[in-house]
Amino acid sequence: MLHEECGVFGIYDRDGYDVARMTYAGLFAMQHRGQEACGIAVNRDREIYLYKNRGHVTEVFHDAELDQLKGKFAIGHVRYPAGKVTGVLNAQPLVTWYVKGQLAMAHNGAISNAAALKKELQESGAVFQTKTDTELMMHLMARERLKTGRAETALVEMMKKVEGSYSLVVMSPQKLMACRDPRGMRPLCIGKLGENTYVIASESCALDSIRAEFIRDVEPGEVIVIDENGLRSIKDNCSGNHQICIFEYVYFARSDSIIDGQSVHEARKNLGKILSETAPVEADMVFGVPDSGIDAAIGYAEASGIPYGKGMVINRYIGRTFIQPTQAERKQKVNMKLNVLKDTVKGKRVIMVDDSIVRGTTCANLVEMLREAGATEVHMRISSPPFVCPCYFGTDVPEKKELMACNYTVEEMCKKIGADSLAFFPVERLKETIPNATCGYCDGCFTGKYPYKEPEN
Amino acid sequence: MLHEECGVFGIYDRDGYDVARMTYAGLFAMQHRGQEACGIAVNRDREIYLYKNRGHVTEVFHDAELDQLKGKFAIGHVRYPAGKVTGVLNAQPLVTWYVKGQLAMAHNGAISNAAALKKELQESGAVFQTKTDTELMMHLMARERLKTGRAETALVEMMKKVEGSYSLVVMSPQKLMACRDPRGMRPLCIGKLGENTYVIASESCALDSIRAEFIRDVEPGEVIVIDENGLRSIKDNCSGNHQICIFEYVYFARSDSIIDGQSVHEARKNLGKILSETAPVEADMVFGVPDSGIDAAIGYAEASGIPYGKGMVINRYIGRTFIQPTQAERKQKVNMKLNVLKDTVKGKRVIMVDDSIVRGTTCANLVEMLREAGATEVHMRISSPPFVCPCYFGTDVPEKKELMACNYTVEEMCKKIGADSLAFFPVERLKETIPNATCGYCDGCFTGKYPYKEPEN
Amino acid sequence: MLHEECGVFGIYDRDGYDVARMTYAGLFAMQHRGQEACGIAVNRDREIYLYKNRGHVTEVFHDAELDQLKGKFAIGHVRYPAGKVTGVLNAQPLVTWYVKGQLAMAHNGAISNAAALKKELQESGAVFQTKTDTELMMHLMARERLKTGRAETALVEMMKKVEGSYSLVVMSPQKLMACRDPRGMRPLCIGKLGENTYVIASESCALDSIRAEFIRDVEPGEVIVIDENGLRSIKDNCSGNHQICIFEYVYFARSDSIIDGQSVHEARKNLGKILSETAPVEADMVFGVPDSGIDAAIGYAEASGIPYGKGMVINRYIGRTFIQPTQAERKQKVNMKLNVLKDTVKGKRVIMVDDSIVRGTTCANLVEMLREAGATEVHMRISSPPFVCPCYFGTDVPEKKELMACNYTVEEMCKKIGADSLAFFPVERLKETIPNATCGYCDGCFTGKYPYKEPEN
Amino acid sequence: MLHEECGVFGIYDRDGYDVARMTYAGLFAMQHRGQEACGIAVNRDREIYLYKNRGHVTEVFHDAELDQLKGKFAIGHVRYPAGKVTGVLNAQPLVTWYVKGQLAMAHNGAISNAAALKKELQESGAVFQTKTDTELMMHLMARERLKTGRAETALVEMMKKVEGSYSLVVMSPQKLMACRDPRGMRPLCIGKLGENTYVIASESCALDSIRAEFIRDVEPGEVIVIDENGLRSIKDNCSGNHQICIFEYVYFARSDSIIDGQSVHEARKNLGKILSETAPVEADMVFGVPDSGIDAAIGYAEASGIPYGKGMVINRYIGRTFIQPTQAERKQKVNMKLNVLKDTVKGKRVIMVDDSIVRGTTCANLVEMLREAGATEVHMRISSPPFVCPCYFGTDVPEKKELMACNYTVEEMCKKIGADSLAFFPVERLKETIPNATCGYCDGCFTGKYPYKEPEN
Repeated sequence: MLHEECGVFGIYDRDGYDVARMTYAGLFAMQHRGQEACGIAVNRDREIYLYKNRGHVTEVFHDAELDQLKGKFAIGHVRYPAGKVTGVLNAQPLVTWYVKGQLAMAHNGAISNAAALKKELQESGAVFQTKTDTELMMHLMARERLKTGRAETALVEMMKKVEGSYSLVVMSPQKLMACRDPRGMRPLCIGKLGENTYVIASESCALDSIRAEFIRDVEPGEVIVIDENGLRSIKDNCSGNHQICIFEYVYFARSDSIIDGQSVHEARKNLGKILSETAPVEADMVFGVPDSGIDAAIGYAEASGIPYGKGMVINRYIGRTFIQPTQAERKQKVNMKLNVLKDTVKGKRVIMVDDSIVRGTTCANLVEMLREAGATEVHMRISSPPFVCPCYFGTDVPEKKELMACNYTVEEMCKKIGADSLAFFPVERLKETIPNATCGYCDGCFTGKYPYKEPEN
Repeated sequence: MLHEECGVFGIYDRDGYDVARMTYAGLFAMQHRGQEACGIAVNRDREIYLYKNRGHVTEVFHDAELDQLKGKFAIGHVRYPAGKVTGVLNAQPLVTWYVKGQLAMAHNGAISNAAALKKELQESGAVFQTKTDTELMMHLMARERLKTGRAETALVEMMKKVEGSYSLVVMSPQKLMACRDPRGMRPLCIGKLGENTYVIASESCALDSIRAEFIRDVEPGEVIVIDENGLRSIKDNCSGNHQICIFEYVYFARSDSIIDGQSVHEARKNLGKILSETAPVEADMVFGVPDSGIDAAIGYAEASGIPYGKGMVINRYIGRTFIQPTQAERKQKVNMKLNVLKDTVKGKRVIMVDDSIVRGTTCANLVEMLREAGATEVHMRISSPPFVCPCYFGTDVPEKKELMACNYTVEEMCKKIGADSLAFFPVERLKETIPNATCGYCDGCFTGKYPYKEPEN
Repeated sequence: MLHEECGVFGIYDRDGYDVARMTYAGLFAMQHRGQEACGIAVNRDREIYLYKNRGHVTEVFHDAELDQLKGKFAIGHVRYPAGKVTGVLNAQPLVTWYVKGQLAMAHNGAISNAAALKKELQESGAVFQTKTDTELMMHLMARERLKTGRAETALVEMMKKVEGSYSLVVMSPQKLMACRDPRGMRPLCIGKLGENTYVIASESCALDSIRAEFIRDVEPGEVIVIDENGLRSIKDNCSGNHQICIFEYVYFARSDSIIDGQSVHEARKNLGKILSETAPVEADMVFGVPDSGIDAAIGYAEASGIPYGKGMVINRYIGRTFIQPTQAERKQKVNMKLNVLKDTVKGKRVIMVDDSIVRGTTCANLVEMLREAGATEVHMRISSPPFVCPCYFGTDVPEKKELMACNYTVEEMCKKIGADSLAFFPVERLKETIPNATCGYCDGCFTGKYPYKEPEN
Repeated sequence: MLHEECGVFGIYDRDGYDVARMTYAGLFAMQHRGQEACGIAVNRDREIYLYKNRGHVTEVFHDAELDQLKGKFAIGHVRYPAGKVTGVLNAQPLVTWYVKGQLAMAHNGAISNAAALKKELQESGAVFQTKTDTELMMHLMARERLKTGRAETALVEMMKKVEGSYSLVVMSPQKLMACRDPRGMRPLCIGKLGENTYVIASESCALDSIRAEFIRDVEPGEVIVIDENGLRSIKDNCSGNHQICIFEYVYFARSDSIIDGQSVHEARKNLGKILSETAPVEADMVFGVPDSGIDAAIGYAEASGIPYGKGMVINRYIGRTFIQPTQAERKQKVNMKLNVLKDTVKGKRVIMVDDSIVRGTTCANLVEMLREAGATEVHMRISSPPFVCPCYFGTDVPEKKELMACNYTVEEMCKKIGADSLAFFPVERLKETIPNATCGYCDGCFTGKYPYKEPEN
């Protein structure tokens, strides 16, 4: 499975609601964007209080933690999984003391010129305590702040130095700020709750979760500043082409989010629909691998007229601490997560839809299980083009040697997986799947064409 | 939501596999049958070792616990949620020292004459340490054991004293036993893994999870004995009508299980199908409330020809420790668990399918959310008849005063929920939904007609 | 180190104080009597609520647990360490439902005819769920209760069946009861707090901890009943010789407790004092191995005129989860727990006092450390006679093959330990060490003479 | 009670011992120097791995954590208690990426010109993520490193910028470094284990705990460098007067440590001895408040000829999570921690020795308990001069308004405490208590005279 790099949330409540609990709810709605760690920083009387730890939102925060985080405005973060011992040190938000007091920041995205910028800073004496791009941006902003009277100007200037994808929420003693990189590669939107509360979130589902009204997406390059006087916008960096990461629609975002005008669920249905045109096959039933293939399968079924069904069940209790029954029986894992509905697929020609193929081992297992259950034909349909290139902008794609599509033709892949047929989504038709999107998109992981320069080395 | 009372598992491996890990996997597959507590007892060289605690299977058991549970045969249990401080004391399996050494037992079901039997035992000096029916059956079996030379005979005799539903796994120093009550109200099946390993489980999905082959269901009243010499059956108590709890198909069991010959998923699709006949309505889309309404919605859509879709998203990270954002905003809970796909339902007439209505508050919220998102009509279809009677056999139905259907007509309910129409599944057609079942069923919670006498008081 | 088997506590507050918190404090003061597990059962409106778990009192109970244990009277228990997975199931108090409702019991001591009594009960159908003598006494009391109208009469009758040591606290729906075995082998005393609150505790230090006034010790064989009408006493079983376990004074009890009239600290000082007479030696300094040898060393120093000093420091942070640095360096453990004051012992002839020698390995290490630090002579004085016999009444003495004194002469032991001289306390002078005690004592672990018959097998 | 600020440990093993476990043992021996948090950073193949968390050493580190910290050299840290939510972020060691790779540092002491230095750095763009002086020194060292080819030279230069007390351990990709401030205010010593392992520790008791040989104390201003080629010393900053914190002897350090030539235990005995000369009184018994007054009491008793005894018992199980029985009964706390030996003090004139008086409330309680137990006279002797000034060098002295000695005369204090007499140690005789010390000392908290300039504001 591919990993998203994080989700961010910000809230400013002029009337003094309980911002930590709202942030908790918002982060919880975006848990799918990061399960390793999470954190909330609140601003109470111009001082910033922070709590963050490894674990899911519901594991890290309880009443005791939230009660200590009273305040008027807050930012929060969920972080993707990783395996480091020192994980909590890389958790976000980061809070620093810089020349003008405290600063808190949380980031979704990846800075492609980070290495060069870090080296430059170190050569003037800087020390880094994490491996995050957030810390780098903190340093840059601190230095810009020396030249200007306002935190938001320092943010605007900092943006000119970094390249790559970023949706940021930033908190100074008096302001909540947010910005999106000039290509708008990662989503970020604005909501409102009552008259006096503004909300910033990576995805609109986080607004829904606290019943905030969706106002609009943050524009590429735009800086949002929220304080006692309300919300204002700085558009000095708004000149690039808007190129949202297409994989937000394909996999990352939650179905119920609407990103840059386009419903994620409808985009996924469109992927299935077009796939049914480009890779049709006669069959008795279409189903999606739960949960990632469900939406596209609905679209495929509707467009093809082949009945939609449920071919597999997922065990909802799979958690982070699941133990393999025995070392010798690795194969069982798939079975413990997914199981086939035997009486439903028996004697049928089935179309199985999933969102992607990475290594191909899971697929092969599923096909085998379907055949054991008596499916007469198994047709695999993938609702994305094959991954063939790295992503430098926040998607954690495995190395080429591990990517099945980099090492085999589609025909070879089909054979290895054991399917009767296999088809990927045609990269040239991606545009049609997001008809309501107000922007272009980056499909670099499929094409190798990126909006920003690739990092050296 | 209604609660099931437990799932049981047993395994006997003549070749010395790692039975605790197999039991772990089997219980994990049946986690939906009980989330409060779980336990595993293994038999190693005729001694029984036990570990049990509150929590999900993946929370209670880790390598450390499983490594201490080496053995040749084992039984396991998952238990439904409850709110007692002393929960762990009621967890199962129970292990006792009785006249012939150790005995372990785990139970799914409810004994309807328990109060009378307990009183009788206490009046001859017995003391009880739990509130479980399991302990009662332990006492009865211990007393029967005094009159006979074999544990299994004591089990057969004990069964003659108790009334109600029970699927049991029992472990003596030398044998693994299992039995099902004479009406077979709770499911129980037998599987085989390789040549020498027998498996017993409440549901066939647990067999699948360890890739065991399904052999057959345990017959109503049958006692299974597994030891060094293999598996044998005692049918002295096999005379009753087989009446499986219909709610196993409607809600309790996992979609991928096959119980008494009938696929659970197909039964649910049939519920939707027949409902589309008995309560048809013109609409643009059918969807199921995730996850409980999905299967019936697929059946409804297929039979009616109305497109199947996804109208709502469920947050998969809802866990046991979820905190309400604020006391004042109880309403938000629904939103945090379920969210509407706005662009998908907007301007549409939708049919929303769910498995049951208990208090009606959740339903009302969902209808409101759909209308806010722009649905033009909302038709509610319930894939079960209305609950109107208590269950004495293992289903935790709320009291009548809390059951909406006990206090309002369907028309009133529809109005309260705010739907354009509301229909329940017709109780008289339940039989048609399980065409492959080899047995009759109990629908006492809908009709008040029970296979066993109701308990006094 | 030898292990004590448990401490008990009971409290009845007619005015409705917070009995769980008082019990918490009392158990905390007796933590030295049992570190494995602890529990509190309270009686609220004739129902008994229980919480118990593995761990120290401060680990098991927090505000959350205590807040759920509101009530008018309570009993509590601390339990000695053991290594079983299923520890919590053997924790106390035990709570049962017997013929007359609920019954809770907690026990300090050991029943020497338990095996025979258990067998008899099992042969009439009883099942046991723990390995505790408490459960056995519950069964016996339940059966006696059938023949009598009062719980306390059942307790009195039960006492006639069991042999061995026991200090019990018992709670029925309406009464708090306590009793001590007819030889009074384990301590138990009564205190009062204000006008209306009675307290029962294994040791008087528990009364001090809640500032309760010490009233008197419970008499051997006496049953105490406390209810709405106050405290009364039943002396039907008060006929035996009072023989307190001498090891309560030597090691088990806390220095500040006064048991059966005798200060524990003064008894220990007397042990040192007499030892200085029976095993005098010229030296520059006397010190005690912390903490067990301190009191006797003070007595030795005072009587001999040799200066008292501190020869070693103990690391107070040694806890239950301490990790050995490496497998290869087992020796380091001693050093991590105890360290020598080098500049203090250098060039000196030292007398090191400890309470007992079990295996002798720790002693040998300490002597080596003293010599390395430059002590010119090391004289070991043990403030108890050598262990040579098992204890059947609640002290967990290792097997004979592990007891150094069973396998070597004192001279050989001295050589093995590497000391310049070694002397034990003379068994015939034990009586002199407890001049204020109102009773005789059991010294069976030193002499093999026991107040009750030894168990068969 | 006053708080020490931290203990440090370093180890370099050319032969590849298990340095994390050795560090664990060393930190455990210095747990008294900091109970809030602890951490270990190891160097494996020039990369630094870190684990740190809140809690005691035995709570934070288990086999799982230590097994992930394999390496050739390591540094470790224990930190004093504090009440911040974000505690783990201030835990040490700190690990950073600076211009020459990774750098780890741990610190005991306090930098008195920190505020000015931080401001200066921030004004050139630096950002700080903790409130530690360690981070400040990291920044300074990173900047010095730009001007020089060697890490140790950067350390030497950094030392010239900071004022205050510091004992540091520092780890670069290839070297273990350590240094002590030019006044040597905090202790630091060097040990050796076998031929090839060097050890650095705040106190010699940490060397003893792993059976390392004590080599010598680090000199004031000295920098120690340990690498593949062994240990070498840089003495560029060795010009100041050596002024060890006198409170290390009075209270902070462990009795068994020898600091700058002087045994801590002997220093404490000397405090008692001199106190018996300057504040003699007729009495029947001398005892120390456990544990802080024990050593001085032994000295007092020996010098005065009044018998040494045990007047109080401390409950060893007092931990960090202790719950007060009830809000209304705050007084009970003292009783739960300390209890009087009634039969021992009854009818006696007692001298009670403690190390200091801060607020005086505890003292008053103890005196009351002694009188209740029947002591006829209570004479309080304090083995330090009265605290009257703040400490800027690592001791956490309460504010003046909370210090009893700042607000009352000795006579008034005696009356408030309820003692028959009260005497403090005479500040002018402190020198005599450390006859073997190779250095002078700082007694600023008693006199207001400090070795370094006081910080502004």
